[in-house]
Amino acid sequence: SNEGSATISRFFDQDEWERHRNVGRYWRHLFSAHKSTVFLRVLEPVLMMSTAAALVAAWNTFMTTVYGLPALCIVPLAHQLTGGVVSLSLVFRTNNANRRVIDARQLLSKLSKCTRDMTRVSQYIPNEGDCRIETLRHLRAFPYALESHVRKGRTRQNPKDPTSFRVDPMPCMARALGKRRARRFMFYENIPAQVLMDMTQILQRALMKGMSTQMHAQAEIIVKELSAVLAESEKILYTPIPISFTRHTSRILTMWLFTLPLSLWLPLGWCMVPAVFLISWVMLGVDEIGIEIEEPFCILPVRPLCDMCDREIVGTMAQALQAQDYQPARKKV
Amino acid sequence: SNEGSATISRFFDQDEWERHRNVGRYWRHLFSAHKSTVFLRVLEPVLMMSTAAALVAAWNTFMTTVYGLPALCIVPLAHQLTGGVVSLSLVFRTNNANRRVIDARQLLSKLSKCTRDMTRVSQYIPNEGDCRIETLRHLRAFPYALESHVRKGRTRQNPKDPTSFRVDPMPCMARALGKRRARRFMFYENIPAQVLMDMTQILQRALMKGMSTQMHAQAEIIVKELSAVLAESEKILYTPIPISFTRHTSRILTMWLFTLPLSLWLPLGWCMVPAVFLISWVMLGVDEIGIEIEEPFCILPVRPLCDMCDREIVGTMAQALQAQDYQPARKKV
Amino acid sequence: SNEGSATISRFFDQDEWERHRNVGRYWRHLFSAHKSTVFLRVLEPVLMMSTAAALVAAWNTFMTTVYGLPALCIVPLAHQLTGGVVSLSLVFRTNNANRRVIDARQLLSKLSKCTRDMTRVSQYIPNEGDCRIETLRHLRAFPYALESHVRKGRTRQNPKDPTSFRVDPMPCMARALGKRRARRFMFYENIPAQVLMDMTQILQRALMKGMSTQMHAQAEIIVKELSAVLAESEKILYTPIPISFTRHTSRILTMWLFTLPLSLWLPLGWCMVPAVFLISWVMLGVDEIGIEIEEPFCILPVRPLCDMCDREIVGTMAQALQAQDYQPARKKV
Amino acid sequence: SNEGSATISRFFDQDEWERHRNVGRYWRHLFSAHKSTVFLRVLEPVLMMSTAAALVAAWNTFMTTVYGLPALCIVPLAHQLTGGVVSLSLVFRTNNANRRVIDARQLLSKLSKCTRDMTRVSQYIPNEGDCRIETLRHLRAFPYALESHVRKGRTRQNPKDPTSFRVDPMPCMARALGKRRARRFMFYENIPAQVLMDMTQILQRALMKGMSTQMHAQAEIIVKELSAVLAESEKILYTPIPISFTRHTSRILTMWLFTLPLSLWLPLGWCMVPAVFLISWVMLGVDEIGIEIEEPFCILPVRPLCDMCDREIVGTMAQALQAQDYQPARKKV
Amino acid sequence: SNEGSATISRFFDQDEWERHRNVGRYWRHLFSAHKSTVFLRVLEPVLMMSTAAALVAAWNTFMTTVYGLPALCIVPLAHQLTGGVVSLSLVFRTNNANRRVIDARQLLSKLSKCTRDMTRVSQYIPNEGDCRIETLRHLRAFPYALESHVRKGRTRQNPKDPTSFRVDPMPCMARALGKRRARRFMFYENIPAQVLMDMTQILQRALMKGMSTQMHAQAEIIVKELSAVLAESEKILYTPIPISFTRHTSRILTMWLFTLPLSLWLPLGWCMVPAVFLISWVMLGVDEIGIEIEEPFCILPVRPLCDMCDREIVGTMAQALQAQDYQPARKKV
Repeated sequence: SNEGSATISRFFDQDEWERHRNVGRYWRHLFSAHKSTVFLRVLEPVLMMSTAAALVAAWNTFMTTVYGLPALCIVPLAHQLTGGVVSLSLVFRTNNANRRVIDARQLLSKLSKCTRDMTRVSQYIPNEGDCRIETLRHLRAFPYALESHVRKGRTRQNPKDPTSFRVDPMPCMARALGKRRARRFMFYENIPAQVLMDMTQILQRALMKGMSTQMHAQAEIIVKELSAVLAESEKILYTPIPISFTRHTSRILTMWLFTLPLSLWLPLGWCMVPAVFLISWVMLGVDEIGIEIEEPFCILPVRPLCDMCDREIVGTMAQALQAQDYQPARKKV
Repeated sequence: SNEGSATISRFFDQDEWERHRNVGRYWRHLFSAHKSTVFLRVLEPVLMMSTAAALVAAWNTFMTTVYGLPALCIVPLAHQLTGGVVSLSLVFRTNNANRRVIDARQLLSKLSKCTRDMTRVSQYIPNEGDCRIETLRHLRAFPYALESHVRKGRTRQNPKDPTSFRVDPMPCMARALGKRRARRFMFYENIPAQVLMDMTQILQRALMKGMSTQMHAQAEIIVKELSAVLAESEKILYTPIPISFTRHTSRILTMWLFTLPLSLWLPLGWCMVPAVFLISWVMLGVDEIGIEIEEPFCILPVRPLCDMCDREIVGTMAQALQAQDYQPARKKV
Repeated sequence: SNEGSATISRFFDQDEWERHRNVGRYWRHLFSAHKSTVFLRVLEPVLMMSTAAALVAAWNTFMTTVYGLPALCIVPLAHQLTGGVVSLSLVFRTNNANRRVIDARQLLSKLSKCTRDMTRVSQYIPNEGDCRIETLRHLRAFPYALESHVRKGRTRQNPKDPTSFRVDPMPCMARALGKRRARRFMFYENIPAQVLMDMTQILQRALMKGMSTQMHAQAEIIVKELSAVLAESEKILYTPIPISFTRHTSRILTMWLFTLPLSLWLPLGWCMVPAVFLISWVMLGVDEIGIEIEEPFCILPVRPLCDMCDREIVGTMAQALQAQDYQPARKKV
Repeated sequence: SNEGSATISRFFDQDEWERHRNVGRYWRHLFSAHKSTVFLRVLEPVLMMSTAAALVAAWNTFMTTVYGLPALCIVPLAHQLTGGVVSLSLVFRTNNANRRVIDARQLLSKLSKCTRDMTRVSQYIPNEGDCRIETLRHLRAFPYALESHVRKGRTRQNPKDPTSFRVDPMPCMARALGKRRARRFMFYENIPAQVLMDMTQILQRALMKGMSTQMHAQAEIIVKELSAVLAESEKILYTPIPISFTRHTSRILTMWLFTLPLSLWLPLGWCMVPAVFLISWVMLGVDEIGIEIEEPFCILPVRPLCDMCDREIVGTMAQALQAQDYQPARKKV
Repeated sequence: SNEGSATISRFFDQDEWERHRNVGRYWRHLFSAHKSTVFLRVLEPVLMMSTAAALVAAWNTFMTTVYGLPALCIVPLAHQLTGGVVSLSLVFRTNNANRRVIDARQLLSKLSKCTRDMTRVSQYIPNEGDCRIETLRHLRAFPYALESHVRKGRTRQNPKDPTSFRVDPMPCMARALGKRRARRFMFYENIPAQVLMDMTQILQRALMKGMSTQMHAQAEIIVKELSAVLAESEKILYTPIPISFTRHTSRILTMWLFTLPLSLWLPLGWCMVPAVFLISWVMLGVDEIGIEIEEPFCILPVRPLCDMCDREIVGTMAQALQAQDYQPARKKV
């Protein structure tokens, strides 16, 4: 899909790194430029700017000779003087957007860390009263709940339209928790928060069944880390880079590019039409990338990571469930 | 309102992200430029600079020909040489201001994380002596207390004037704690700190009623995290970016722009008047954004976040209050 | 005072933020430029550079025509080529200095957080043996001890000279601890470290009196956080940005500016004298700000923060002292 | 090998630092330039660009004079205007890649810290039931398991081909755990995660044998830190810098360089061929470095660090195993 | 010594800050330029470049007129176009090196924090079996062990040659631990790690003697922090900034400067010889600083900090040793 090109749909392996590093990338990228999403997305404004350049060039060629009207052109000084601040604003904005990608990737990494930690620590949760298996079931449900939370979907006539980006957590959560209990979660506004709430409830039951208080505290700390992952995901999702910054960058960029033909006519003549085309592509492309990666859950491999967490929990569940119960509190009774 | 344009008044959802990313944004932003607050706010100095440019142009046109006075113009070298340091200072300053927004948003995220954590952990607080319900009530009051603390208001004849940005915590805190107790808090200078003080008092009572010491320590740690949110909010609120930096940037920017017509006359002639207009807008706009986002609690959606915390606590309260008491210390008696 | 202009002598409130954001700031700053400390401090080197420019201009005007000596001038290329690296070094250095301000402000914020945390936690310290009140007294003394530690003063004939920046902790510490005990602290090299040492001694006594071990550990953790504040303050105070960096920046800046008249003569003529004046002000001003904020405890509102901590501890002391003793260890006996 | 030149194959010692700092480095680097991997890797595109430049120069020399065709040349303004944004994108991208190196190096540092911490803490693990020695054996296995995890290898006909970067953990893990048990690990997808899972199993057994709960919690925290090292390594390994950013940088760089001869013909003539050669090398070299260090486990000394960890564990094992058992939980029975 | 000029040999006090900030610094730095180490170190390459410039100038003056050979000169466009990327690479590299200084200074700060924390916490370690005094002795030894670890020395004929930077930990460690035990440490490869290993051994003994488990855990956490300081010091010491980055920067800088005379001949003539001298100094100076501060333990005041730690431990030892034993575990027996 169009949206998908900036997307990293799966994890990189060494073969992909090799391809990524291959020096043939320059030609590969150059010859695939016309298929690049960034290019296709900015094509419309780029063409507009080229058209404007062509019109200015036409005016300067015909109107001035035929009707003796003044040429539309200035000395390029103004564009040179503002080139610095425009470039810097653009690159800093994109860098700030990239920091959001780094943060979001960090969160996904913490998610996988916490599921592993909880699986490991579950060996200390008593099997009695199904506390251990229940914790693991909720743990399996959490990544999918989080995924659906960050991909609540866009308004579309047909909600199944793939561009609506709506993720239905029901199938995956049902696989982990059973249909009946998964359906109960659907009534909550914040499903992942509710999963954690229930996890604490189970842990409290485990404490009563005699779980070691030290390890119980460790388990609660992992729940807290998952809660931090949730809150920080919402942080990224709910608030963009200050909009006035985005708007001002967009405005100064458009104006700079629209007035560029005036500056380029004297030195370049008709050559300025392709020049404007390329310069617009360069500048608007950087801006477009900054915008695309500003909401990083759209481009990061969230689903592959959820599946990996799921696979790992299921894979080690048997071992985790075998561990003997250690219930110091019980023994005292 | 005028002030409000940089403000993010509510959370972004996927529809807004789609609109944000839409490539039509270039035209949308361009055609709404005259309504932009940044534009309207810097319009006055921008017009002043354009007027100065027009006066210089007029002098250079009439005075030189009529009275033979020397033209006011220089070769643009001086502006080219200083363009780099002016642009860099401007963009770095704005970037530093943006880091304050990132920090403040992080604090709001922590606030919502801590309220969820405390709601979850409240299941371990004994119901006896109303400890659990009291903790949750104070927890509901905290976000509103914090909001009023960061929005203490400006001096206005009529304190209800909406531009005074004074938030009265009384109604919301009364909803959580009851009128009588909420009113008591109004006598304190630092209301959120006092809410936390009272929360510890309740937790101490809970400890005496036999709460598990491990979980009590966890609860106290969450209170400490809330205290960190408060202290860091004050940090952002009480201290701006070093004022000498702001002033120097402002001065060199104004001087650079005021002397710009001298440099632009030779290459651009009368065209320099719109050029000065646009360049001033670009440069002063970046400065204005840096100033606007420097106090980020003015532009972040503090109230929606408080309401979300409130809704979530109320929504899970029933479940939290149902949890059985686990009082290991009691049992020993 | 002269030194004081970069100083933030008190906390910003909403009225000051409004003034700070007011668009009239451009004129305010411009018309107060001659009173600006940065301007006054760099005035001497700026005037030297302008004088050099005037001398070069004079030589080029008279010596060349009268004695036919060669003009002192070059094409400005060399300054254009090095303008980038000079500007970048300058702005990065200032940005690094600003990061020190951010760190120092963070420390002050942690200081106020820790005093609040300790006041809250003091409710768990037994009243027996005056442990609780003693902890609070030492807590009151700590911020002032820290302030005097970061403002040990400069060598002046008269140590009471206000520019010696020597802070005497005695009066404030005596208010908290009584004269006799405060005087004892004066014999120590590192007073704040000693206050923490004594605080641990009191906490150990509290532990023996039967304080809950969990809460005792929490209290010790807060002492450790205060110790971190102290160590990081010393880090900022004892080590500047690598001096060779500062010196090289200073040297290349001075040389760039001193040779500037040679480059500016051809394009600007006598106009270069005011041009050199303004360019020197811009560049040296940025450098001066970087130097001024490099030692941030000179410009941050340390004293107001200490007073705020003191007020808050005193304000909540009554409530803290009322809390009942909870001594699990005792009860077992 | 070709790939290896950016690689740091062993730790720096003071002699290497001295050589690194030696001012003769300028000549050393200059005269070894033709052997530099970066140079060799970008040589192909650099030569392509130089060839393009030569073709343009040939056309402009012969076609214009012989056939009177128009010369292929433009005024360099377009390249000057976009030079800023191209340079900034390039340098910011490389800086972002460098931050990944810093992160990865930090992880290796944490790995060595955690192995030391666990060796130290193992003194508190009971010798009974071989808990202590088993923990240490698994600890020895972990670094090698992690190494093989980040170097899973590339697809090669012969998997022993050294450029496949496939690390077989079997020999080293067998040395630590014995062949039989090491072989069991080979069946798992995520070997290091499984090592940690087993470590927790051993620690649970140790808890049952009466290990102090406090120190058991400390040991589990170290396991959690190792788990964080694993998760963050995967973060770096599985996700590159947003690919659209890399591709756009690559495209604008190639286009900028390919059109450069048009701009350089007028001022430089045939001199532009070596100029294009050098400029391409400078620009593509920076890009190449950014790409090479983007996957930092390829260039960091992972194996030397693993060996160092191994040596240190083995070296202190004897002392660790001598420590007496402290089993408070046992004594209570 | 030559090496020493970037070195901060002792802590800054307020007098030095005043001198540092004094506006006379511009003249002071300028007139001491010829004594600056950075200048002296880069003098050789700077002179080489100036000689090259002189040769080019001579050729262009004599060869062209006498033999009619073509002048070696080009229009400066190529240097203008690459000036941006060269300056940016240079300044970003230096900034990355500076971040290593910041990190290293942070570690020294943590070291002093941890020694204070351990001294304070030692009051909870039982005096019985000399546990407390032994802990403090090892604590005194740690900073010196760490210093010798980061200054293992360079290969010199005479190992006492001061430029070998070899620090012998024996005298200082013997002062703390006695000769016999200090000598034992000399056999270990990683002395500071071994000191921590022994500290844990002592703490385990203390635990057996009945130390409070909570405070024992706190003490172990401080040991872990010291271990983190060690591991991060090694991180900085063992791995430089990616060498390919350093080499490429060095190469493009040298080439840019060597070809500079070609670009400068046309506009500057013989004036280009001093111009090349100054430009080389500016650019190579920034590079040299980046290289010098890349290994920050060479320039930071490590020894003064170790001495400060030692003084502080000795100064508070008496108070620490007086504290009564609190042995809850014992009492239960």
